[in-house]
Amino acid sequence: MVIVMHHKASEAEIEAVVKRIESAGYRAHLSRGVERTIIGAIGDETLLGDAGIELLPGVDKVIPIMAPYKLASRVMKAEGTVITVGDVTIGGDTIQVMAGPCAVESKEQLFEVAEKVRAAGARILRGGAYKPRTSPYSFQGLAEKGLQLLAETRERYGLLIVTEVMDVRTLPLVAEYADIIQIGTRNMQNFYLLREVGRYSKPVLLKRGLSATIEEWLMAAEYILNEGNQNVILCERGIRSFETFTRNTLDLSAVPIVKYLSHLPVVVDPSHGIGKYRFVPPMALAAVAAGADGLLIEVHPNPAEALCDGAQSLTPKKFGKTMVQLAQIAQAVGRRV
Amino acid sequence: MVIVMHHKASEAEIEAVVKRIESAGYRAHLSRGVERTIIGAIGDETLLGDAGIELLPGVDKVIPIMAPYKLASRVMKAEGTVITVGDVTIGGDTIQVMAGPCAVESKEQLFEVAEKVRAAGARILRGGAYKPRTSPYSFQGLAEKGLQLLAETRERYGLLIVTEVMDVRTLPLVAEYADIIQIGTRNMQNFYLLREVGRYSKPVLLKRGLSATIEEWLMAAEYILNEGNQNVILCERGIRSFETFTRNTLDLSAVPIVKYLSHLPVVVDPSHGIGKYRFVPPMALAAVAAGADGLLIEVHPNPAEALCDGAQSLTPKKFGKTMVQLAQIAQAVGRRV
Amino acid sequence: MVIVMHHKASEAEIEAVVKRIESAGYRAHLSRGVERTIIGAIGDETLLGDAGIELLPGVDKVIPIMAPYKLASRVMKAEGTVITVGDVTIGGDTIQVMAGPCAVESKEQLFEVAEKVRAAGARILRGGAYKPRTSPYSFQGLAEKGLQLLAETRERYGLLIVTEVMDVRTLPLVAEYADIIQIGTRNMQNFYLLREVGRYSKPVLLKRGLSATIEEWLMAAEYILNEGNQNVILCERGIRSFETFTRNTLDLSAVPIVKYLSHLPVVVDPSHGIGKYRFVPPMALAAVAAGADGLLIEVHPNPAEALCDGAQSLTPKKFGKTMVQLAQIAQAVGRRV
Amino acid sequence: MVIVMHHKASEAEIEAVVKRIESAGYRAHLSRGVERTIIGAIGDETLLGDAGIELLPGVDKVIPIMAPYKLASRVMKAEGTVITVGDVTIGGDTIQVMAGPCAVESKEQLFEVAEKVRAAGARILRGGAYKPRTSPYSFQGLAEKGLQLLAETRERYGLLIVTEVMDVRTLPLVAEYADIIQIGTRNMQNFYLLREVGRYSKPVLLKRGLSATIEEWLMAAEYILNEGNQNVILCERGIRSFETFTRNTLDLSAVPIVKYLSHLPVVVDPSHGIGKYRFVPPMALAAVAAGADGLLIEVHPNPAEALCDGAQSLTPKKFGKTMVQLAQIAQAVGRRV
Repeated sequence: MVIVMHHKASEAEIEAVVKRIESAGYRAHLSRGVERTIIGAIGDETLLGDAGIELLPGVDKVIPIMAPYKLASRVMKAEGTVITVGDVTIGGDTIQVMAGPCAVESKEQLFEVAEKVRAAGARILRGGAYKPRTSPYSFQGLAEKGLQLLAETRERYGLLIVTEVMDVRTLPLVAEYADIIQIGTRNMQNFYLLREVGRYSKPVLLKRGLSATIEEWLMAAEYILNEGNQNVILCERGIRSFETFTRNTLDLSAVPIVKYLSHLPVVVDPSHGIGKYRFVPPMALAAVAAGADGLLIEVHPNPAEALCDGAQSLTPKKFGKTMVQLAQIAQAVGRRV
Repeated sequence: MVIVMHHKASEAEIEAVVKRIESAGYRAHLSRGVERTIIGAIGDETLLGDAGIELLPGVDKVIPIMAPYKLASRVMKAEGTVITVGDVTIGGDTIQVMAGPCAVESKEQLFEVAEKVRAAGARILRGGAYKPRTSPYSFQGLAEKGLQLLAETRERYGLLIVTEVMDVRTLPLVAEYADIIQIGTRNMQNFYLLREVGRYSKPVLLKRGLSATIEEWLMAAEYILNEGNQNVILCERGIRSFETFTRNTLDLSAVPIVKYLSHLPVVVDPSHGIGKYRFVPPMALAAVAAGADGLLIEVHPNPAEALCDGAQSLTPKKFGKTMVQLAQIAQAVGRRV
Repeated sequence: MVIVMHHKASEAEIEAVVKRIESAGYRAHLSRGVERTIIGAIGDETLLGDAGIELLPGVDKVIPIMAPYKLASRVMKAEGTVITVGDVTIGGDTIQVMAGPCAVESKEQLFEVAEKVRAAGARILRGGAYKPRTSPYSFQGLAEKGLQLLAETRERYGLLIVTEVMDVRTLPLVAEYADIIQIGTRNMQNFYLLREVGRYSKPVLLKRGLSATIEEWLMAAEYILNEGNQNVILCERGIRSFETFTRNTLDLSAVPIVKYLSHLPVVVDPSHGIGKYRFVPPMALAAVAAGADGLLIEVHPNPAEALCDGAQSLTPKKFGKTMVQLAQIAQAVGRRV
Repeated sequence: MVIVMHHKASEAEIEAVVKRIESAGYRAHLSRGVERTIIGAIGDETLLGDAGIELLPGVDKVIPIMAPYKLASRVMKAEGTVITVGDVTIGGDTIQVMAGPCAVESKEQLFEVAEKVRAAGARILRGGAYKPRTSPYSFQGLAEKGLQLLAETRERYGLLIVTEVMDVRTLPLVAEYADIIQIGTRNMQNFYLLREVGRYSKPVLLKRGLSATIEEWLMAAEYILNEGNQNVILCERGIRSFETFTRNTLDLSAVPIVKYLSHLPVVVDPSHGIGKYRFVPPMALAAVAAGADGLLIEVHPNPAEALCDGAQSLTPKKFGKTMVQLAQIAQAVGRRV
């Protein structure tokens, strides 16, 4: 932490800041410039906090210099984390594609999608049983019935299941059925839910909040890691910007940045990121080229009849074609699908 | 809902869209232009949804034209809602100021603030017992102990209490202690929590999400109203923009807009909106000039020692001075504090 | 400037950074923490720059700590600048309202507006002769003919004129006619134009760029000040955010912040900030409550027939009513209209 | 254009709107719903404008439905435009990489970069002689001297030149030297400059404005096309969002979207988009995977000594390595570098 004093700060004010720094557990280090004095506070910012220094007389500003996360940081753990789910790994050489409908609607729908995404090479099935919807009048998901259908599909088609939990009360149920527990974008800072999934050992797919900085996203992961669950998969799914043509603005630069700052694997959801099926395949290719460890792609047997997010869903046929292209991009960056 | 067809859409494609519209419960209405055909879908969009029309062949885009909320809309209820809490009203001629610390820290702290904000004219005390914090290493609040201190302070100083609920499991407890239940910005789309508070009759203060449009905010209110709780108070508290000097960008234009679109009262939290105490008083004045029904202002006896958000807290003295100015602005717009 | 070294930086790397700092004209100051070494570079960042230090081996990040502007800063000039234009002042006790149509359309239009805004108390007439339009097919302004009409109106109604310059080639002409030269939001970083108006002595109204931070805005002012023109008036006119209900997001917090960081006067344009006439009066009141030194308000005798921006223009009648309310708010904050 | 009437609009108000629509040159088409009447205005919105209809009594809102650009639209021209510059083409099968320093600094610097980027396979050299800088105290470019050095380098190394024009007055000079004239992000809506380059036949590289929507960007291209210059290359270079870790947020989804909406070629500048050299290679690969027709990449022989933007420049060695990977990605999407 660096404290920049006002250009008119008095000696007494400087001394008071030093005293406060030291009483908070930091060591103080002064640099006297021609115009201003700067004070370094040396110690663990993550634990010691800012000690209210910004409000002391004569202080102009306080600049944090350490990342506020520890467990999620590559400084803490240099090698990348590889997460094992069933017989697949996330974060290794193989790019994992999690495909399926936005919402679980029926056994027929789920079986049809499962069969086709499996045939195209996907190993993980996505599908929501609990759906966060902007409107209370929209379809809210099949709840436990949806989870059962997912389990049935898993058994029949040999796919792993990723599905969203929205509520601490249904977490035990979701955790029972899911292979990977998804925390959605609207719950990225639902700290009670983060803590609760942190007490499980099942992998957690943590979506980036709609307006979360990369740092805030890693802090949300820190909540989970801090409870003991080390299996966190980060998922970029578009941030909110001023552009209205797309549903969100897919921030692919988050992929190499997260891999630089953190040891956790990162996957990309181009379906939510763009919101229009037409642009999902090129952005899926771009995600892999940028270094993503996996993808979430919405696939529906008949998008125009989907109860949720049809506009961003691929047909199984388009998905199959995309998988072929993905394999070529993966190869170009030294990986495989 | 208006459907714009591609400039090359065939007659068969147009007919298929009309058929789909009608089977979804809408009436269809065609307008054939020189370049394109436009189809109006007449009916209740809120309930009928978009019926997957965007994905039908020949469709260029689908434009919704009705607001997706009903119960929150001024179309539904022309006169403004006035909410009664204890012996005060929110939404009437009197501007209610909710003042107090970010977090409840101790009895001494709370009593001191309560005495002073009461003396300055505030009727409602704010203070968090459960605190949403970006870092798992920050102070998380006193929990039930904090609620008890709030209740003790209420009894002693005759103030009403507004305090935040973060979790469905602690809602019964919070609802027992609070006069107004606060839903924080990170939980604006925690739909399970919204539904649960909707089953209480106690007033709910619903903060705008960090990147929520006004429409999404009103949709969140709709979740609460739809469960039966009509006592929703909206609270603008700053949105996320590219500007980094302020903690958030306080969107005061939301005040007259919400009052135009909705019958619900709206208050402003300049403390979180700006994040620096120095700029809180002018923005509090501006909020009232813009038509706000109330304010949330953070006040701490010693901001430099605060366990949370000291940088944006006013001292009791500065708060008292601000109240005097607020009274003058209120009078200039035909209201009182 | 503070240089944070990587946690694994070697002694040789630290020494190389110190050497570079010193050869760039700074003094270096080391603070060795347990985990990292931090190096302060003491000197004038504005002039010395960053010297490429971020790219030296072992450097984690470089944090600037001084504001990059000097002439615009309150550190440089503690008392607020009051600008005199004809017989009015901007930045003093009186709030100046600049009212008139978006675009000059005809003598009749201009005379009617001028008469009415004068009667309501405005002393400065706004009106564009050169119009920046998103579409090449929209009305682009009357050019010199428009300037002549403005001059005629000035003579007849005793109002001062503020009008926009878009091009260095027409600047001499605009400067001949205008009392205040306006630089529009799209030209805030048209550095050649900034330099050219900096060589005049006429006041310049510098609008904030659509996505300019407050710091970048003050840097644009610095370009003008640095050429010798000290008469810069800053104008907040809305920034771009994700909210689509309003044309822009009016950032009123910029008002007290600019007055804190800089000695320059600041005015607000609620018409462009909101884009819908209905919400202009409350936001004009809020701007004055927040401390603005003046306002730009679009007024048109018949907004529905306006060639430009009718949707955000007030009728003369509504403008008159707003001026009465503004006087009350001004009085409440110790000023007058 | 669709006009949505208020739910309480009277018959007389509806008739007045119809009359206004017709007098503006549109045909009107009514759809009467249960709650509201909707009126379609059929005709060319680009030319007829909105006719002030939003302000007529009884009108709730006006929704444009046609794209406001024509010449830039794929509706107008279905096949993609391929631009020929010297012996290279932009928009065809070959991905063109434009590489070089941010600013031209000296002959030695330019010759060294030119030799190395040529050897790595680039055919176009980038380099600024006129530099837009946020601070008036930063290096502003070598001006005509810089153009001469670019010309000398072209002759010696057989590379084409792309360089920025910032001012209408220096345009003739820049156009004399450049093979491709660059319009920078800050000038995307400098309409006078757009019109002037529109009168040349040389290709124009038009960077997206920092907060420009894709539609506004295409409208800026429309200004150029409308003057007769059909050789417009669009360049995505990052937009402004709330994320502060990167200089800008590179919006790669703009690539497939622009190619869908427009026939113009689109290239990507990952150097400005990210601002940190480390993340430039993965984002360059991602851009090509997303369908970009080319890249702008900053390369400097010694980034730590660069007078401008060293932090985002690749060394020639890293650039060479990136070119090899780009060739593999290009092949995977059926193209070549």
